[in-house]
Amino acid sequence: MRMFKSDNNSGVHPKILESIISANTGHDNPYGYDKYSVEAKKKIRELFEKEVDIYFVTTGTAANIIGLSCLLEPFEAVVCTDTAHINTDEGGSFERISGSKILYTEGKDGKLEIEDIKPFLTVKGDEHRVQPRIISISQTTETGTLYTVEEIKALADFAHDNHMLLHIDGARIANAVVALNTSFKEMITDTGVDLLSFGGTKNGMMVGEAIISFNNDLTKDLKYYRKQGMQLLSKMRFISAQFIGYLEGELWRENAQNANSMGQYLANELSKLKGVTVKEGLMTNMIFANMNKKIIDELQEKFGFYTIDEDTNLVRLVTSFDTTKEDIDRFIEAIKEVN
Amino acid sequence: MRMFKSDNNSGVHPKILESIISANTGHDNPYGYDKYSVEAKKKIRELFEKEVDIYFVTTGTAANIIGLSCLLEPFEAVVCTDTAHINTDEGGSFERISGSKILYTEGKDGKLEIEDIKPFLTVKGDEHRVQPRIISISQTTETGTLYTVEEIKALADFAHDNHMLLHIDGARIANAVVALNTSFKEMITDTGVDLLSFGGTKNGMMVGEAIISFNNDLTKDLKYYRKQGMQLLSKMRFISAQFIGYLEGELWRENAQNANSMGQYLANELSKLKGVTVKEGLMTNMIFANMNKKIIDELQEKFGFYTIDEDTNLVRLVTSFDTTKEDIDRFIEAIKEVN
Amino acid sequence: MRMFKSDNNSGVHPKILESIISANTGHDNPYGYDKYSVEAKKKIRELFEKEVDIYFVTTGTAANIIGLSCLLEPFEAVVCTDTAHINTDEGGSFERISGSKILYTEGKDGKLEIEDIKPFLTVKGDEHRVQPRIISISQTTETGTLYTVEEIKALADFAHDNHMLLHIDGARIANAVVALNTSFKEMITDTGVDLLSFGGTKNGMMVGEAIISFNNDLTKDLKYYRKQGMQLLSKMRFISAQFIGYLEGELWRENAQNANSMGQYLANELSKLKGVTVKEGLMTNMIFANMNKKIIDELQEKFGFYTIDEDTNLVRLVTSFDTTKEDIDRFIEAIKEVN
Amino acid sequence: MRMFKSDNNSGVHPKILESIISANTGHDNPYGYDKYSVEAKKKIRELFEKEVDIYFVTTGTAANIIGLSCLLEPFEAVVCTDTAHINTDEGGSFERISGSKILYTEGKDGKLEIEDIKPFLTVKGDEHRVQPRIISISQTTETGTLYTVEEIKALADFAHDNHMLLHIDGARIANAVVALNTSFKEMITDTGVDLLSFGGTKNGMMVGEAIISFNNDLTKDLKYYRKQGMQLLSKMRFISAQFIGYLEGELWRENAQNANSMGQYLANELSKLKGVTVKEGLMTNMIFANMNKKIIDELQEKFGFYTIDEDTNLVRLVTSFDTTKEDIDRFIEAIKEVN
Repeated sequence: MRMFKSDNNSGVHPKILESIISANTGHDNPYGYDKYSVEAKKKIRELFEKEVDIYFVTTGTAANIIGLSCLLEPFEAVVCTDTAHINTDEGGSFERISGSKILYTEGKDGKLEIEDIKPFLTVKGDEHRVQPRIISISQTTETGTLYTVEEIKALADFAHDNHMLLHIDGARIANAVVALNTSFKEMITDTGVDLLSFGGTKNGMMVGEAIISFNNDLTKDLKYYRKQGMQLLSKMRFISAQFIGYLEGELWRENAQNANSMGQYLANELSKLKGVTVKEGLMTNMIFANMNKKIIDELQEKFGFYTIDEDTNLVRLVTSFDTTKEDIDRFIEAIKEVN
Repeated sequence: MRMFKSDNNSGVHPKILESIISANTGHDNPYGYDKYSVEAKKKIRELFEKEVDIYFVTTGTAANIIGLSCLLEPFEAVVCTDTAHINTDEGGSFERISGSKILYTEGKDGKLEIEDIKPFLTVKGDEHRVQPRIISISQTTETGTLYTVEEIKALADFAHDNHMLLHIDGARIANAVVALNTSFKEMITDTGVDLLSFGGTKNGMMVGEAIISFNNDLTKDLKYYRKQGMQLLSKMRFISAQFIGYLEGELWRENAQNANSMGQYLANELSKLKGVTVKEGLMTNMIFANMNKKIIDELQEKFGFYTIDEDTNLVRLVTSFDTTKEDIDRFIEAIKEVN
Repeated sequence: MRMFKSDNNSGVHPKILESIISANTGHDNPYGYDKYSVEAKKKIRELFEKEVDIYFVTTGTAANIIGLSCLLEPFEAVVCTDTAHINTDEGGSFERISGSKILYTEGKDGKLEIEDIKPFLTVKGDEHRVQPRIISISQTTETGTLYTVEEIKALADFAHDNHMLLHIDGARIANAVVALNTSFKEMITDTGVDLLSFGGTKNGMMVGEAIISFNNDLTKDLKYYRKQGMQLLSKMRFISAQFIGYLEGELWRENAQNANSMGQYLANELSKLKGVTVKEGLMTNMIFANMNKKIIDELQEKFGFYTIDEDTNLVRLVTSFDTTKEDIDRFIEAIKEVN
Repeated sequence: MRMFKSDNNSGVHPKILESIISANTGHDNPYGYDKYSVEAKKKIRELFEKEVDIYFVTTGTAANIIGLSCLLEPFEAVVCTDTAHINTDEGGSFERISGSKILYTEGKDGKLEIEDIKPFLTVKGDEHRVQPRIISISQTTETGTLYTVEEIKALADFAHDNHMLLHIDGARIANAVVALNTSFKEMITDTGVDLLSFGGTKNGMMVGEAIISFNNDLTKDLKYYRKQGMQLLSKMRFISAQFIGYLEGELWRENAQNANSMGQYLANELSKLKGVTVKEGLMTNMIFANMNKKIIDELQEKFGFYTIDEDTNLVRLVTSFDTTKEDIDRFIEAIKEVN
C-alpha cells in the first residue's frame, strides 16, 4: 500500500528500471565517460535549452553541497530560509563539507523574499563577517509553496546586482514546473539561475540527482569537488541512464502530473471532512492540514504521514508518481470512520 | 568487447540486476530502514560470522573516507603505502573530508610491513606531530599483491598493541579471499580487523560498497558521518538489495573465481610470448607485465590497459567477473601479430 | 584622546607591560613549558578555586573556536543567540575550523533563555539533523546585558540534564564579575560551566586570552587542537606572564571597576541630555543610547562610537580600563554644543 | 644560561621590547588599522623593495598555513620535502585548516630539487589525483642547509612554467640572507617567490611572523583567511611595532649575524674535539654533529640540544641572537671533561 510519508518512499518507475537494464551492455568507460552519460547530458541540455554543465551524483544532499561548495570561498555564506533542506535536513553536511556558513532567516511561507536578504548585505568587505555570496531557495519549497517565475527572476536579478548567485534546490523541481504550467527553460534558464540541484529521485527515479551549472566558468573545477565529495561512481552509466528514461517522452512530466493531481484530489477530499483544515494555496504534491488529534493518533502509523507541529496538529501528506485515487479514497474513508 | 582496463569497466551481473528489480515492490521506508536493508545486513553478518555494523554507500572512496573519518580525531593520522588508493586515487578526499593527515611510506610490493610503521610511532603525546591512529592496507593491494592471513593478523596485533586500529580497503576483497582459499571470517573477523571497506562494484555489482565495523563502540556515530558524507540514499533498498543477490549462492565467489582464473590464464598465456615479461607471484585478477613498446603502442587503445611506468613499459591488465577465455585469446593473438 | 569605540582600542596597563618585561630573562622552555606559564596557571586556578585546564591563546576568536571544536563531533551543534560573537563577528571561523553548525536564535536582550533552546532538542538521534551539544552564552553579552549567577546555573543544569555542555564567551567576563558583585568561583566554577573563554585583552592586557576547561576529561586532547589551530606560540611565556600581572593584586578587578564606573557615569551624564535616551538596566562598560542624528553626524568621528541601528539612531559607547571622567565630560560638553 | 635547544628558547632583544613599550600610547585603531602597522608595512616594503601585501600573525605555523590555504583550492596540493616544517612539525595543521594534501618526497640534504617535483606533475586534469599547485621550501631548511639564490630562482621559474607557485617558509630567513651575503630583494623579490612566511621570532622578536605576498591578486582575500584562521589580534599594533624595531637599523641583520657567527664558532670548536664529527657545509645557526653517546648522556639535559637520530647519535645544536662565546666555551669545556 502506498503511504503519504514522502515521495521518496516510492519505488522506481518501470521505465527507469528499463533504462538501467538496457545500459547493462558489457564493458564501457567508467566514471561517467560512457555513452549513456553523453546521451543523458544531451537530453538535459535539450530540456534546459542551454549548454549547461552536468554532474551526476547519488543524493540530493550531494547535489546541494557539492554544487554550493564549488561556488564558495570558505569566508562566503549562503542565505536561505530556516526551513531550507540544506539548513535543517542535511545533518550539517553543508558546514562540514564547505566550511562555510549558512545565514538563515525566517522567510514567509517557506519562501525567501528580497527584503529578508538585504540585512545580510551590509557587511561587504568586513573581515569580521562572512560575506554573503549565494541565495539558495527550494522550488518546490519544504512547506509546499512555490516561487513564481517572476519571483525567481527577481531573486536572480537581485543576486547578480549584489555580486551574488542564485541556487535552486530542485528536489521537487518537476512538480513545480508542472504546477506552474511552465517549462524548465522558462523557470530556470531564462530567469538567470546559476546553479540547480536537479532532483529526480522523488519523482520516480531510483538514484537520480544532478548538479546543473548555468555558469560554466564558475564551475570549471566541479569535477574535482565531486570526486572529493566521494560521488564519482565508477559505473556511473547506471545513474545517467536513468535520466535518459526520465526525459524521454517526458516521463518527468507524467510522473509529476500524477503526483500533483493526486495532491489536489487529496486536498479536495480532505477539505470536505470535519476535523480537518487544509492549508490553502498549495499546488503540488505536498499537502499540509490541521487534523483532530484523534485522527492523527489512530491513522498515522497506517497511512504514514508526518506531524509537523504537535501544538497545532499540523500534518504533512505527500503524494507520489504512483499514488492512485484508491489510495486516497481508502485514507478518506478511514478518517470518516475515526471522526 | 571486454577490455583489460579495470574490473569497473564491466557491467552488472544479471543476478544483481534481478535483485534490484525484485526490490521494486511499491513503497517502503527510505534511508535504509527498509526490509531489503535488514535482509542484506543479516547476510553480511552471516558472511563475517559476527554482529558487525554495516553502512551502505555508493563509492569505494566513500566507504574508505567516511569509515576512516569516524575513527579519527583531526590530529590523528593514517599510515599506509604511497600506492594506497586513499593516498593517490581519491583526489585528496581523505584530507578534505577528515581534515587528518596520511603518513605514507614506500612499502614493498605495494604492501605495508610492520617495520615501515614503527618510525611513525615515536611521536606519541607530542602536540607538534600528528598522532598515528590507523594502519590502512588494501587487500588485494593496488599492485596486485596479497597479504596472507597471518600478515593481516600480525598487523592487527601490532596496531592494537600500539593503541592503533587496522583498516582494510577491500575494493577487491573477494578476489583475495578466493585467491588465498580462505573465508571472510578467517581473513577479516578472526584476524582482528577493525574496519573494512567491503567492495562489490568491481566484482559484478552495480553500486555495491559498504562500511563494515568490527568495533561497534568506535563507530556508534557513523550514521551521522554517512549523512554528512552525503551518502544516505533515500531509496537505499536498491543498494542493499544488490548485496542480497551478491551473497546468495555465493555469487561473490563465483565472480571472483572467474576473474582470478582468467587473470591466471592471461598471465600464463602472456608469459609464453616473446617481448612480454609477466610479474611473478600475482594471484588475483590484476596482471602486471613489461611489454615491448611496440605492443603497447599498437594494442593499448583497442584492449584498453594502463601503462603504469613509461620508463619500463610496465602495463596493468585487469580481468573481470565476465572476462572469457576468448577475450584473452583474442588479445594474445593480437600481440602475436604485432610481435 | 580616549574614544568610545571599543575597549580593545585601548593600550596596555603598565603593570601588564612590566610583567612582560620581567619575563625577558634569557632562555626558557618554549611552547608554554616555561616557569611563567606554570605560575600563571597556578594563579588562574586560585582565581577559579579549581584544578582547571588552561590553554593560552592570542585572540578571543581562538579561545572560542578551539575550545568549542575540541568538545564537538562534526555532527554536533552549538546553540546561541544570533548576536553571539561566534555567530556574527568571527568571520565564519567556527564553521570553517570546527566543521560544525551554529543553531542561532533571537533570544531576548542578547540573552539566551531555556525556552529558546528547547525547540532544538527534538531531533535527538535523527541523523538528518545536527545534534545540539553545547549552549554558548556571552557574559557580558554583546548587547551589554548580564546573566545573573542563578541564570547561569539554570542554563548549566539544563545543559547537563540534556546531555549538553555550557560554554561562556568571557571576552568581558571581568566586567561582569564586578558588575554582579560576585566572584569567578561563584559565577563560573560553582554554577557548573564546562568551558570558558577567559578574556583579558579588553580589560587592559596586551594579548591575553585563555581557554579554561572545567571538565578536564573532555578536553584532554585540547593541546593538539591548539597546535592545529595555529596558536601554540614558541615564546608563550610573554603571553602567560601577562596573566600573572593581571591576577596579582587583582588588577583585573581594578581595571573592570574603572571601566564599569565610567560606563555608569557616562550613562548618567547622557541621560541628563535632551536628544539622548539611554537604554536602561545596563551595568557594565557598554552603554547603548538613541541619539539625535545631528549628534551622531557631528561627533561620531571625533569620539569614535558605533552606530548599531541606523533606523533608530542607536549607538554603542564603550568605556575602558583607562577611561577618565575628563574623557566623558569632554564628550558630554561636545554633545551640549551640538544640541 | 643560554642553551642550544632552539633559537626560540631565547627571549626578546631589548630593542624589540622598546618598540612594544613605545607603542603603548593610549587608544588607537584595533585589528591592524593603527599607525604602527602602517609604519611596519612601509618598512617591510622597503626591505623587499616591492609593494607586497603583508599580514601579521602570531606563529610561524599560522603564517605558513593561512598563506598556503589562501592560494589553494581544496583539490590542489603542496609539494615539499618530508622534513618540511609544514609536513612534520605543525601537528597536521595544514591538512586540518586547508583541507588540501601535502605531497612529500625525500629530497636531498633537506632540499627539494626540480627532479623531485616532476613525478607529481603527470596528473594534470585527472580528477582522481590532487593537482600540485604550490612548491614549498624552507630557507634555511630544517636540516640547516641553504638554497642558493640561483636555486630559488630555478624553482620559481619551474613553478611558473608549470602553473605552480613558490612558497618559502622563512622561519630562519634572516640567517639565510646573512649566510649567503645577499639581500631580501635579491633572494626573494627578484627570484620570483610568490609567498613568504617571514619569521622574526627565532631571531630576537617576541611574536613576529608575517605573511608576505608578492602576488597581490592571488591573496586579495587573505584578510578573511587570517580572520577565520583566528589570527586577527585586536591590539595588533604590539605585533607590528616589533617589526619596526626589527627592521630599523637592521637589527635583523645584527641578530642573525651573531647567531650565525656563533654557529660557525661552535662548529669550529666542536670539530677540534675527539668523539665529535660536525656535519660539514652548514652555514647558519644550526649545527648538526655526531657525538659519542657518553657526551650526549651526560650533557644533553644541561645544554639542552636535541638528538635527531638515536642510531647515529646525531644531535642538533642551535645558536641564537644572544648566544655568546662564553656559552660555547662553557659547552666545549664540558665536553672535554666528559671525553
